[in-house]
Amino acid sequence: MNDVMSHNDNGSLIQLMDTLGAKARAATAVVANASNDLKSSALRSAARIIRNHADVILKANALDISDAEARGTKGAFLDRLKLDAPRLEAIAKAVEDVAALHDPIGRILAEWTQPNGLRFQRVATPLGVIGVIFESRPNVTADAAALCVKSGNATILRAGSESFRTSMEIANAMREGFKQAGLTEDAIQLVPTKDRDAVGLMLSGLKGMIDVIVPRGGKGLVGRVQNEARVPVFAHLEGICHVYIHAKADLAMAERIVLNAKLRRTGVCGAAETLLVDHAVVDTHLKPLVISLLDKGCTVRGDAIVQESDPRVTIATEDDWRTEYLDTIISVKVVAGLDEAIDHISTYGSHHTESIVTDDQAAADKFMKRVDSAIVLHNASTQFADGGEFGFGAEIGIATGRMHARGPVGIDQLCSFKYRVFGSGQIRP
Amino acid sequence: MNDVMSHNDNGSLIQLMDTLGAKARAATAVVANASNDLKSSALRSAARIIRNHADVILKANALDISDAEARGTKGAFLDRLKLDAPRLEAIAKAVEDVAALHDPIGRILAEWTQPNGLRFQRVATPLGVIGVIFESRPNVTADAAALCVKSGNATILRAGSESFRTSMEIANAMREGFKQAGLTEDAIQLVPTKDRDAVGLMLSGLKGMIDVIVPRGGKGLVGRVQNEARVPVFAHLEGICHVYIHAKADLAMAERIVLNAKLRRTGVCGAAETLLVDHAVVDTHLKPLVISLLDKGCTVRGDAIVQESDPRVTIATEDDWRTEYLDTIISVKVVAGLDEAIDHISTYGSHHTESIVTDDQAAADKFMKRVDSAIVLHNASTQFADGGEFGFGAEIGIATGRMHARGPVGIDQLCSFKYRVFGSGQIRP
Repeated sequence: MNDVMSHNDNGSLIQLMDTLGAKARAATAVVANASNDLKSSALRSAARIIRNHADVILKANALDISDAEARGTKGAFLDRLKLDAPRLEAIAKAVEDVAALHDPIGRILAEWTQPNGLRFQRVATPLGVIGVIFESRPNVTADAAALCVKSGNATILRAGSESFRTSMEIANAMREGFKQAGLTEDAIQLVPTKDRDAVGLMLSGLKGMIDVIVPRGGKGLVGRVQNEARVPVFAHLEGICHVYIHAKADLAMAERIVLNAKLRRTGVCGAAETLLVDHAVVDTHLKPLVISLLDKGCTVRGDAIVQESDPRVTIATEDDWRTEYLDTIISVKVVAGLDEAIDHISTYGSHHTESIVTDDQAAADKFMKRVDSAIVLHNASTQFADGGEFGFGAEIGIATGRMHARGPVGIDQLCSFKYRVFGSGQIRP
Repeated sequence: MNDVMSHNDNGSLIQLMDTLGAKARAATAVVANASNDLKSSALRSAARIIRNHADVILKANALDISDAEARGTKGAFLDRLKLDAPRLEAIAKAVEDVAALHDPIGRILAEWTQPNGLRFQRVATPLGVIGVIFESRPNVTADAAALCVKSGNATILRAGSESFRTSMEIANAMREGFKQAGLTEDAIQLVPTKDRDAVGLMLSGLKGMIDVIVPRGGKGLVGRVQNEARVPVFAHLEGICHVYIHAKADLAMAERIVLNAKLRRTGVCGAAETLLVDHAVVDTHLKPLVISLLDKGCTVRGDAIVQESDPRVTIATEDDWRTEYLDTIISVKVVAGLDEAIDHISTYGSHHTESIVTDDQAAADKFMKRVDSAIVLHNASTQFADGGEFGFGAEIGIATGRMHARGPVGIDQLCSFKYRVFGSGQIRP
C-alpha cells in the first residue's frame, strides 16, 4: 500500500516521484495485456474493498473536513469534500459501472486489404501512464482510476491537499482490491505527499514516465497545467457555451432549450453562458426568452436592444461575452444573422459546446460545419455535453484541444492504437 | 509572396515569426472551410506554377548547391539537396497526386443514436496550423505543404539553411499557384530567414499559433524538436526495427523477408536493424540466414552462437542492440523463445516496426498483441512501414508516439474531429 512519506529536501521528492513513475510504467505492461475479465474483476474487487473500508475512509474524510473547517472553509467547497455513506456507496457503484463497460482495448478501428494481399488493422491500445491532478472531490480518485485501468493504462493520481486523507484511503482500498483480484496494484498510484512541488514534477512528465495529464478542478488548476505541462493534456479551461436562436427557430423549442441550457445546472461546463438571438426574430422571440429567464431567477445582461425587452436587464460589457459565469447569469446579444453568430462564437467562445435552434437545415449545417467547437448541437440543449449523455458510460473530463481526444473523454478516448499487418510472405518491391 | 527579410535583433525576429503565425492562423478559417474542389484546384495550380517556375527554382538550387560545395559538402547530403528537371517534375507530380486524394475533412468517423433520439456524429476536422521543420531535401517543402492543405490545415515551413533558396522558390511558386486558384496563399508560409532562433520560436508554439510540429530530418533535429517543443510532435527518433524468426517459421519465407527487410533500402526508417532467431531453429535456419546476409554484402554482428555460423560474423556489443545502422549492417541474436523476443524488443526497440515470421497463428497473435510498436507485421517485411504501402497515398512522416497519430501520418491523420449532435428539441432531464 501507499504510505504517507516525509522528505526534507527536493532530492528525496524527486526520488519519490521517480519511483512512482517507474512503478506505474512497469505496471502498464501488465494492465495493457490484462484480459477484460481480469480488469473488470479487479475493479469489482476494488469496489468491494471501498465498501469494506467505509469506516476508515469516512474517518479520514472527517479529519479532512475538520481541517477544512478549521481553515474557515464552508459552503459548496466543503460540500464537494464531504463524504457520507450514500456518497461512498455511489463511488463504489461508479467503479462497478466502469467495470461493466465494454473493453476498449483491442477494438478494430479500421481494417482494409491492399492489392498485394497485405491485410491492415488499426487496433486500439492503451496510452500508457495517465497522470490525474485533481482538487477537492475525493470521488475523482475512484472514477479516474477506474477509467484509466479499464482502458489498459496505469495512473498516477495527485489529490488536492484538502481531500488528501480521503483520497489516500480510497486509493489504498482500490489497490488492495486489485491485489486480491491478482492485478498489479501499482496500476493505481496516489502521490503520497502534499508537497506542492510534486505537481510540477508531474507536469514535467516524470522523465517520460507520464504520457498524458488530466487536470480535474477549477480554472486556476487547469490553466497552470495547460501552461506548464511538458506532456499532452486532456482538459478544457472553460466552457463559454452559446445558444444561437436562428431566424427560423421555433419559439417554444427555443425557450425550452435556452432555459435548460442555462438553468438545469449552472455549475457544469456545458451550461450556456451567452444567448445569441437573430435580429430577424427580435420582435417575436427576444422578449419571451428574456422574460422567461428573468422569471426563473436568472440575471440577464444584454445589449441595448435586449434591454428594451425588460427593465430588469442590465447592460453587458465586453467582459460579459468572455465570462463563464457558472451561475444564474446569462449574457444576451442580438446578432445580424448566422455569420455574425459564428463570428461572435469564434471571437469569444472557448471551443467547448454550442447549439443552434432552427428549423432551417441549411443554416444548421453551416453552423455545425463552421463553428470550431468540440461539440456542436442542432435543436438540443448544451447541457448534453457529457460523456454519459454521449453513451460513453463515464468520462474523465471534457477536452477542447484538437489533439487526440476532443469532447467527452471516456474509455475509448483514453486509448492509442497500433497497426497490425497480416501477410503471407510479402516483401516490398 | 514571401520575401527574405533581414532583422538585427531578436525582437524583430519574434515580430516576424508572430506575423507568420497570425497569418497562418487566419488562413486556417479559410482552408478549413474550403471545398475539396478548391483545395484540389489550388494544389494543381501550385504544381503548374512549380513547373512554370522551373528556371527560377533550379537557379536557386544551383546557388544552394554551389554554397554547399564551397563548404565542402559532398556525397549523399549533396545528392539530397540537388534538383534537376526530372526531380522537379517529380515534385510537381507529387503535389498533383495529393490533390487527387480523397477529402479527409468531413469524413464521418462514427455515428450513433441515443435512446432519447439524439443522433451523434464524430466528424473529421482540420488540426489547425502545422509547423514543419526540415533539413536538406527541398521536396519536403512541396510534399508537406500539399498534405497540410489537403487536410484543411495551414502550414509554417522551416527549411534547412542548405536548401533555403530552393525551398523559398518552391514555396513562392505554390503560394502563387494558390493565389491564382483563389485560395489564400497564407495557408503556406515559409520562414523567410535562416536565423536559427526561428526554430526555437516555432518549438515554443508561436504563442499558440502552431498546433503541432513535424520534424523531417536526422536524429539530431528530431531529438531537439522532441526535447524542446512545447506543442505536440509527430515524429520518430529512430527506427530500430526487428525481424523475429519464430520456431515455426518457414525458412524460405524467413530468408526472403529478412533480406528485404534489411537490404531493400538500408537508409529508410523501416529497415530492419536486428534479427532475432528462435533457439529452436538455430540448427536449421540460423546459418542459411546469416550466410545469405553475408553473401549479399551485409555485415553481421551477432552473439557467440551466431558467430558459429560463419567466421565473418563479428561479436555484437550491447551498443549494437541499440543502434539504428541505416547501413548494410545487421545485429543478430538467438533468443530462447517468443517471450525473450518480445522482451528484447521492449528493451532495445524504438516502438517503430517489428515483424514476426511464423506459421503458428497463436504465436503471431501474441507477438502482435504484446509488442508495443506503431506497426507490427506477421510474415511481411518491415520495409512496408510507409504511408504509400498502407494505402494512405502519401505521408508527412511516421510517428512512434502514442498520442493522436501513430505510424504513417497521412492526410487522415493530419485531422482532428468534432461531434455533431442532431436533435429535435431535446433538453436534458
